[in-house]
Amino acid sequence: MTDFAVPENTVVTATAELLTRVRRQTPLVQCITNDVVVNFTANVLLAVGAAPAMVDIPEESGGFAQAAGGVLINLGTPHAERRAAMEVAAVSAQQAGTPWVLDPVAIGALPVRTELAHRLYDVGPTIVRGNASEILALAGAGAGGRGVDATSTVGDAVRAAGEIAQKTGGVVAVSGPVDLITDGRRSVRLANGHVWLTRVTGGGCALGAVMAAFAAVESDTFAATTAAVLVYTVAAEQAAAVAGGPGSFAVAFLDALASVTGDDVERRARVS
Amino acid sequence: MTDFAVPENTVVTATAELLTRVRRQTPLVQCITNDVVVNFTANVLLAVGAAPAMVDIPEESGGFAQAAGGVLINLGTPHAERRAAMEVAAVSAQQAGTPWVLDPVAIGALPVRTELAHRLYDVGPTIVRGNASEILALAGAGAGGRGVDATSTVGDAVRAAGEIAQKTGGVVAVSGPVDLITDGRRSVRLANGHVWLTRVTGGGCALGAVMAAFAAVESDTFAATTAAVLVYTVAAEQAAAVAGGPGSFAVAFLDALASVTGDDVERRARVS
Amino acid sequence: MTDFAVPENTVVTATAELLTRVRRQTPLVQCITNDVVVNFTANVLLAVGAAPAMVDIPEESGGFAQAAGGVLINLGTPHAERRAAMEVAAVSAQQAGTPWVLDPVAIGALPVRTELAHRLYDVGPTIVRGNASEILALAGAGAGGRGVDATSTVGDAVRAAGEIAQKTGGVVAVSGPVDLITDGRRSVRLANGHVWLTRVTGGGCALGAVMAAFAAVESDTFAATTAAVLVYTVAAEQAAAVAGGPGSFAVAFLDALASVTGDDVERRARVS
Repeated sequence: MTDFAVPENTVVTATAELLTRVRRQTPLVQCITNDVVVNFTANVLLAVGAAPAMVDIPEESGGFAQAAGGVLINLGTPHAERRAAMEVAAVSAQQAGTPWVLDPVAIGALPVRTELAHRLYDVGPTIVRGNASEILALAGAGAGGRGVDATSTVGDAVRAAGEIAQKTGGVVAVSGPVDLITDGRRSVRLANGHVWLTRVTGGGCALGAVMAAFAAVESDTFAATTAAVLVYTVAAEQAAAVAGGPGSFAVAFLDALASVTGDDVERRARVS
Repeated sequence: MTDFAVPENTVVTATAELLTRVRRQTPLVQCITNDVVVNFTANVLLAVGAAPAMVDIPEESGGFAQAAGGVLINLGTPHAERRAAMEVAAVSAQQAGTPWVLDPVAIGALPVRTELAHRLYDVGPTIVRGNASEILALAGAGAGGRGVDATSTVGDAVRAAGEIAQKTGGVVAVSGPVDLITDGRRSVRLANGHVWLTRVTGGGCALGAVMAAFAAVESDTFAATTAAVLVYTVAAEQAAAVAGGPGSFAVAFLDALASVTGDDVERRARVS
Repeated sequence: MTDFAVPENTVVTATAELLTRVRRQTPLVQCITNDVVVNFTANVLLAVGAAPAMVDIPEESGGFAQAAGGVLINLGTPHAERRAAMEVAAVSAQQAGTPWVLDPVAIGALPVRTELAHRLYDVGPTIVRGNASEILALAGAGAGGRGVDATSTVGDAVRAAGEIAQKTGGVVAVSGPVDLITDGRRSVRLANGHVWLTRVTGGGCALGAVMAAFAAVESDTFAATTAAVLVYTVAAEQAAAVAGGPGSFAVAFLDALASVTGDDVERRARVS
């Protein structure tokens, strides 16, 4: 897909502009996410400049998805009530034109979330975010990972990512040492980030919420997803530079998300 | 209500005394609160000197509310089992004379929590804590906010706060840049705090738990609520002075809650 | 039980070796734990070198317990769906030979979790971890504590710990200023740690997860449990040395868990 790769300058310049928009517009991001990362996810959204709202019961999630700027659906701990809330929210977001992100955490071997992921996939997520194993499992091309660890590489998932993007008409982001983002036509690889993001729970999950925040302020979903990843991973690098371990990294990361500038992203972005 | 305002000295002196009592008595505070802030709330209670207990299933919440020193009921993520636990706990606390705090998060537009808030309101909370939009919605005078953001100002909610206090016979605390506390007869405005409290999830919610802790050691609920707000917001100022962003602020805030003294509060309190 | 006490050198040397194994093997630890500490628990496991997976719905928890290296079952917030997941996981772990830890949080006075704890106890946990009040309640010898506070001392629970170990054929760890670990035949007392561990929510609960991680890499459960406690409490001491309160302690603790060495443990261990 390299033929369709986006020029580096375009991607980076759009990111600075979209970061400014997120901070000015404070998009309301509804998250139906897992118990483990829900606090960190809310703090990440607040730090980057968005407004989190964890409206995750089925009687309220559909109406809220119409009003929200973006929605995140993350399958990490799919309790029955939350599963119902997810289906209502996805359908409602789709009908209202609210961009929504599907993060199919640990699908493949685990039956309930795998079945649910496929049903949500059929609704048509604006963005799908996952590691290579999850993307392969969603495309029906792999057995999934062991929990949140990717046992496959990003390279293994290029074809599956393209297939998912073709089917949904949306964007797919595959997380790894080098992230891949594609809408089936354009694609880009982003090499920023830090290994400590994988040593803090929610390091991946919260990124899905940030994607929803950026998609709330920009209708070009490919540009929005790319911007979210760049802001997030450049902030991670800034945090790692002042941290002494995963605990202080998580704290510094929130500080960095609140202070990272468009210039920082432009200077540090490693796009190919 | 300024006619009934409490002299500044009285409020401040009581705070120092009540802070000492909380730390000596370690009141047991039962929290039935939302998934997003439950960890931060427990850490805030531990830092200030209280003992948190998140007993939130209906088969256990009623009996525990009789034994607890104070109870917090926060409607942030009102799953069905937790809703049942809240109703049992509120009635039980009321019967046993345990002070309890109602935080009607994001009521107004969201149907399940709005109906539940009104039922709990009828039980008679010792303290109601919310932003202006939530207080207006509880009093039936507004449409509520968008999630946890207040779209109305504290000034807009003065009358509604007074009405709620008259009906419950308890105290109402309206959060904002300047907090208002009233029992319908006395009222006070407190100008301490820091904007970073609004950039950390649970910055408001955990304050409800601290109010329950102070109410557990002082039967004058107006004095207890005021003391809780002063300790909390002065600690926030101390934390902001050493923090570099919302992540390091949250950490420094817990440290400050554990070390703030009555002298600190007396010196920094901005009461009117 | 001092007759059967393990020589200090043996315990300490095994710890260094087991810590290396955890970091090399990255054992997958399934946690069915409470809402309050689930984030901290995952971060503790990641910091020490293990891989957390919070698979806690009944349709998925049994199958996962067969594949996991270790399982933690913590009764802190025993919602109905999670209770079902716990029973399935415990039976499945037992059948598959997966080591599993039972943390009977706050049993005694609270009815649902007390009954559940006894049912899980009958399945035969590999490790039982609790404070003295909880251990006494599980053995049927006490009325339990008030929430997570121990009102009994470790000394009070020595006999009860031995009885539980005899019945399960496993290990019992009683937390307190000096921790007691026994398998009914051997016993050891460990005096490391810091009071700030009791001022951070999950300071005790996350230790249960670390025990599961160490048991995943070592079939001598007594050695594994002892190693887990030593690594955890020595890291706590290192963190306390650089922290200014409970907030910065929790952050420094995660950093210390990621960097603590076998030499550090050997130098600081206080074993009797």
